[in-house]
Amino acid sequence: MTSSAGFGGFHLDDTPTAEIDRLESYLVPLADSVRDLLDAALRTTVDEAGVNRARAEIDAVTARLRASQIEGTHGVHFNHEGRSWQWGNAAVGTRNAVAPPMTVRHGDDGTCFAEVDLGAAYEGPPGKVHGGVSALLLDHLMGVTASADRRPNVTGTLTIRYRRLTSLGRVRLEGRIDRFEGIKTFVTATVSDADGLTIEAEGIFVMPKWARDHFPHPS
Amino acid sequence: MTSSAGFGGFHLDDTPTAEIDRLESYLVPLADSVRDLLDAALRTTVDEAGVNRARAEIDAVTARLRASQIEGTHGVHFNHEGRSWQWGNAAVGTRNAVAPPMTVRHGDDGTCFAEVDLGAAYEGPPGKVHGGVSALLLDHLMGVTASADRRPNVTGTLTIRYRRLTSLGRVRLEGRIDRFEGIKTFVTATVSDADGLTIEAEGIFVMPKWARDHFPHPS
Repeated sequence: MTSSAGFGGFHLDDTPTAEIDRLESYLVPLADSVRDLLDAALRTTVDEAGVNRARAEIDAVTARLRASQIEGTHGVHFNHEGRSWQWGNAAVGTRNAVAPPMTVRHGDDGTCFAEVDLGAAYEGPPGKVHGGVSALLLDHLMGVTASADRRPNVTGTLTIRYRRLTSLGRVRLEGRIDRFEGIKTFVTATVSDADGLTIEAEGIFVMPKWARDHFPHPS
Repeated sequence: MTSSAGFGGFHLDDTPTAEIDRLESYLVPLADSVRDLLDAALRTTVDEAGVNRARAEIDAVTARLRASQIEGTHGVHFNHEGRSWQWGNAAVGTRNAVAPPMTVRHGDDGTCFAEVDLGAAYEGPPGKVHGGVSALLLDHLMGVTASADRRPNVTGTLTIRYRRLTSLGRVRLEGRIDRFEGIKTFVTATVSDADGLTIEAEGIFVMPKWARDHFPHPS
């Protein structure tokens, strides 16, 4: 993948959208298979010989995949057609099996929301979502909410109030912009499980220095 | 694994420590192999045929591991010897490839600390740790810090101040108890990368209702 220009590590990339779609058509299913393996490896009770055989086979696949790979990390790319991709993102990266992955959607009213199915690998208290996983997903969703007008933002302060434990399974997140103050965007958000609200959050997102010349401040 | 008793989903388990150590001796390396595969699958540039072959092999391993597996999630176990294990925990679970995993250590002075190597799968901004991953690790380390006197705690409120972006690589977290107020424990913590402090956090941790009869309140 060739980058023709970039600033702040965000790469303007000359790869056409059709080529990104073609790559994702087989690379995203690979990550989905790794997610499934990750869950199986976590929950398996097969015996030592079976586990050791599995491990040897996994290591062989890993070696073949590493025969050709990028240096370092994927970063954030966008092309001239307005398509962006951040395959390695820990919350939303579709090629990253650490990420559930979450898909953030934009509501008609400036809100953002996501529904995520969280399984055994996202556990904290028994049967419950790890409070830090909720924080990870909130941080990301709120950052997207803050950047809904396409201004880059980084998290300044995040305050998360855990009202009760969130059950594993389908979880819904919602975020909305509360207000702007200069380079700061104030966002509120919630997490809910099947039984309703579990977490409330407030975030202050800040436009990074490198972006301030490229984007106007709303006020 | 048989559970003989439990409360609040924390299982008192009659499995001896020696047997837990034996299981971990081959199951933790399996998770390590999945972590390595996860990174390879994220960064690979092999062609479509190579990826599809890898995927088929991964799916075959997954099916064999699933031939015998636990229902649901691992939860949190402890035995009569004082050993505890939470294999599926999203931050510290040694059998969970979503977790880096972090190992929290106790300092002599009541502090807790951890050093974690964060690679491509924990990225947010290009080359930087996802702010939500830092929140995940902080939430967990601070919870352990709050529970250092072995009282169970859940996160009440978490406030995270991002001073600057955290570079991927070796990251250090430190937590300490600031004070107690009845069922609340106030904890402060920091994240640092190779260039120093990047994040400051405050957390209020609360003893859950089910535990209040089992543990005395310091005050």
